[in-house]
Amino acid sequence: MSPAKARGPYAKTAARRADIVRAARDGFAERGFAQSSLRDIAQRAGITHAGLLHHFRTKDELLAAVLAQRDAEEWERGSERVSEAKAAAPFFDGLLRDHQREPELMRLWAELAVAASRSDHPAHEYFVDRYERARARTARMMGERVPAGPPEGAPDPETAAMIFHAVLYGLQVQWLLNPRLDIGKALEHALRLLLDGPAAPSDPSSPSSATEA
Amino acid sequence: MSPAKARGPYAKTAARRADIVRAARDGFAERGFAQSSLRDIAQRAGITHAGLLHHFRTKDELLAAVLAQRDAEEWERGSERVSEAKAAAPFFDGLLRDHQREPELMRLWAELAVAASRSDHPAHEYFVDRYERARARTARMMGERVPAGPPEGAPDPETAAMIFHAVLYGLQVQWLLNPRLDIGKALEHALRLLLDGPAAPSDPSSPSSATEA
Repeated sequence: MSPAKARGPYAKTAARRADIVRAARDGFAERGFAQSSLRDIAQRAGITHAGLLHHFRTKDELLAAVLAQRDAEEWERGSERVSEAKAAAPFFDGLLRDHQREPELMRLWAELAVAASRSDHPAHEYFVDRYERARARTARMMGERVPAGPPEGAPDPETAAMIFHAVLYGLQVQWLLNPRLDIGKALEHALRLLLDGPAAPSDPSSPSSATEA
Repeated sequence: MSPAKARGPYAKTAARRADIVRAARDGFAERGFAQSSLRDIAQRAGITHAGLLHHFRTKDELLAAVLAQRDAEEWERGSERVSEAKAAAPFFDGLLRDHQREPELMRLWAELAVAASRSDHPAHEYFVDRYERARARTARMMGERVPAGPPEGAPDPETAAMIFHAVLYGLQVQWLLNPRLDIGKALEHALRLLLDGPAAPSDPSSPSSATEA
């Protein structure tokens, strides 16, 4: 079997899987995870129920594929823009807005991240590794901004990255509970605090000497 | 029926409920939620299975009671200490350490907060209200520190409170995924950044002029 011949059926399988994942993503986003059935998703993807089961045995497996793909797309889009501090704010602002357009996927992601912290969860290694990589990437960006090391009192790049990803995650949970919150503004402030470091502690009654950036 | 007479049976019911909640908390913390049964919890509390069902119909209902009580205790302990910025850091440091001693309860809390964001979830109003109150209390503390308003470029107290609670929540999720992370240090840094505000934007190559607090 030559590689050229193998490509055909493999490409077909990959395309079929992609169709199913896309249909599932739309279905979960519109109807919610609990209200979606594998049968509905198969119909949406234009294949039989048995055909879908050939690729994904359970709805949980399909959910993991949907969220991993959403994450991979964001990762791809962020790969250049997150390496530079100036580009980070607009990138993450856009990311939050994308998530807010699909609140059910945001919720499913947040739920899965916590559930996956159990070491026997099927997505455990995925989420552990994913957060390591996300923190490492952010820490590199933070570190490049201050090549001589962070200013006195400021967190090191690894700690700043940990704080940033905590803010990104925690703001979404608060927004799911109260969609009137302006989490975009909060994320922007958090990023600026992390990039600029803390002010020298001062008497709060003294006039502010901060200048516009 | 005089009030004095009513007090007896009421007190007995409350005490019995408290025994059950304590037993459930210990059981969930030790064995995990999924591995605990109402039958085990009844045995641990020294009552019959039927007796327990008289107070709590489902394991989910009991879980909500356990987490609400844990939250109420923390709320009570924090009520004075969180009103002052200086006392906030040691209070929240202690809070994180307490949570780290019971990782399964930390995880159940984090999971329930996300699940409860669905408007038809039985704990929806509890969590919505709980986060409003937590942010309001933190915002008051932040606001009292800067009576003349936040310095230029710093978040307003409400936004700072939103960021702080995002950090508190998000750090715990990262720790559940990787218990080697020093989230206590990260929380301390985040709180300091939020209380002191951002540094005036400066050339990162210039020598730091920050002074020790």
